[in-house]
Amino acid sequence: MALELRPIGIIHTPFVEPAGTPIQPVYASETQGTVEVFEPFVAGLADLEGFDRIWLLYWCDRAAPPRMRIVPYRDTQERGLFSTRAPARPNPIGMSCVRLLRIEGHVLHIGEVDMLDGTPLLDIKPYAPAFDSFPAARSGWLGEQGTGRTVADQRFHDAGSTAYGA
Amino acid sequence: MALELRPIGIIHTPFVEPAGTPIQPVYASETQGTVEVFEPFVAGLADLEGFDRIWLLYWCDRAAPPRMRIVPYRDTQERGLFSTRAPARPNPIGMSCVRLLRIEGHVLHIGEVDMLDGTPLLDIKPYAPAFDSFPAARSGWLGEQGTGRTVADQRFHDAGSTAYGA
Repeated sequence: MALELRPIGIIHTPFVEPAGTPIQPVYASETQGTVEVFEPFVAGLADLEGFDRIWLLYWCDRAAPPRMRIVPYRDTQERGLFSTRAPARPNPIGMSCVRLLRIEGHVLHIGEVDMLDGTPLLDIKPYAPAFDSFPAARSGWLGEQGTGRTVADQRFHDAGSTAYGA
Repeated sequence: MALELRPIGIIHTPFVEPAGTPIQPVYASETQGTVEVFEPFVAGLADLEGFDRIWLLYWCDRAAPPRMRIVPYRDTQERGLFSTRAPARPNPIGMSCVRLLRIEGHVLHIGEVDMLDGTPLLDIKPYAPAFDSFPAARSGWLGEQGTGRTVADQRFHDAGSTAYGA
């Protein structure tokens, strides 16, 4: 079964390469970007301003082919891929909870941005604490000390990903 | 640009039709299901047991074609599609934060299940409060009183979706 996606927009950020890009919005509090939504989908943005945060789903178009065991950014040992948020996945769908600053027509201004410039947008969903916020959930190895790393390198991307890529 | 997905597993739940299916995991506290992960991806499940909750991304394979303005389950007036979590979207990717009960080989036992039986699985990501939990985020129309509805009907699905479907 093959399932086909089509981009509904494009994400613009200051990050042109993985090295130095924040690995999660929480590590990118100062960073802003924009989401350009393509015309057929602009009417779907109505009522979004009332939300402080939105989920962006996007296609990690520069991710390397996946491996099932990887050394994630926040640790020094191999972990199962699905216990990490690494971008090189069987279906390389990224998911970030960004801050919605304002909407101007077909452009969303967003804060706490952690994706590469030019990333294809797949979906926008409202962030609802009632559905999405579980402050006390145990978070396995991610809850441990880890490396403290907050920015990416090339390990999960095509160019130069010799150590961990395909 | 066309982007192709391939299912990495299948989600088994008690829900065979949209009508009566919980619209979010938070409204399905008693409901359990399983995720069957296909063989090439099983090694990627390592280290997942340490997480209380996981994100499932899945393909809403029975969703109707999208409309940019819809009446969501939780309200009585039309809203922009992207301010809702309705399944009928340009890219019908569903996203649910379910409870991880236990793992047996290639099978995840999960609680708080809100998807239809047989739904194709696209990705599993660990739930990390540090990345995902924002208890105080304003949630627009979803934060208002609304309808109080907690289960779905046919409005966003192919069969019988005369009022709101394609």
